[in-house]
Amino acid sequence: MQELITHIARYSSVKPGQLDAIGGFFVRRSFEKKELLLEEGQRCHEKFFIVKGCVHLLYLRQNGVEQTIDFALENWWTTDFMAFQDGGTAQFSIRAIEATEVLAISAAQQRELLSAFPELNEYFHLVFQRAYAASQMRVRKMYDLSKEDLYRDFSKKYPAFLQRVPQYLMASFLGFTPEYLSEIRKKYLS
Amino acid sequence: MQELITHIARYSSVKPGQLDAIGGFFVRRSFEKKELLLEEGQRCHEKFFIVKGCVHLLYLRQNGVEQTIDFALENWWTTDFMAFQDGGTAQFSIRAIEATEVLAISAAQQRELLSAFPELNEYFHLVFQRAYAASQMRVRKMYDLSKEDLYRDFSKKYPAFLQRVPQYLMASFLGFTPEYLSEIRKKYLS
Repeated sequence: MQELITHIARYSSVKPGQLDAIGGFFVRRSFEKKELLLEEGQRCHEKFFIVKGCVHLLYLRQNGVEQTIDFALENWWTTDFMAFQDGGTAQFSIRAIEATEVLAISAAQQRELLSAFPELNEYFHLVFQRAYAASQMRVRKMYDLSKEDLYRDFSKKYPAFLQRVPQYLMASFLGFTPEYLSEIRKKYLS
Repeated sequence: MQELITHIARYSSVKPGQLDAIGGFFVRRSFEKKELLLEEGQRCHEKFFIVKGCVHLLYLRQNGVEQTIDFALENWWTTDFMAFQDGGTAQFSIRAIEATEVLAISAAQQRELLSAFPELNEYFHLVFQRAYAASQMRVRKMYDLSKEDLYRDFSKKYPAFLQRVPQYLMASFLGFTPEYLSEIRKKYLS
């Protein structure tokens, strides 16, 4: 829990001492590399705070190829938020890229949590405002940058993360073939 | 103010009667058709709740062409959220498509508002979770759908809105030429 409590205290005015009792609302889960946290087409009951590891969000194209649409790593919240809030079925899967540990909370437990600790809404307000702000920038870049420039931008912003993601997933995310990504990497590194 | 108070009461457990005093934190502003609410490259001080009207978010491509990346209408919050939260310069402009009325609040006034009414964090938490959820779906569609299918999807989801947006803006949003959009519309309507 300490990772989440630290994160909350960093992004809101809630003091760590107020948060000793929140542990009971979460379940700690471990996933092996390549294990699914969430499966497309299944009900989405939970959202996840990543304590350790990293994951990718993906869906299955009609041609059977997996398309990676996002990543998440330590201190990020992830799930299919549309399905989570509406209690619907997930439109994408989430899979561990490395051995991953999360704190999971169900929608029902979150209602209890926020009822007991309404001050946590301040934290979630800020977390989602940041996520939405990043998403606005991402959409702008999807319009503005060539795929090659998207890769450059990503490498500059998240150099450490790039070391952790297999190239074929990064290629899928960027809409490249793995071969083309390999060429660009060489060009970019030289 | 009534529109915002109704919206808050609808999306949170805050009661309308608790909100009489929040009016003082906002400024009501009117914009004529084509007037800018926010200008790319300028400091972004405010976020806007749209009471009436609709706007588009756009940036200037290096070739001088305006690229529309999003729309917002009644009961939506809009601004450059990255610039708003960091106090930076806006990466895009916001321009009225119709005569538009908004409630504007500065970052400083919002801090005061949330300090006086911390229960509003519940509302903003939900608003931004919804916005982020919609944004996840949009990114998935940007990967998954052809531009023509994006138009179909948009028409099905927002038929009334489509009547309010000039075709050249919709074409820019979808990455079409206006001529091609006109062809698709004919095909789709027939």
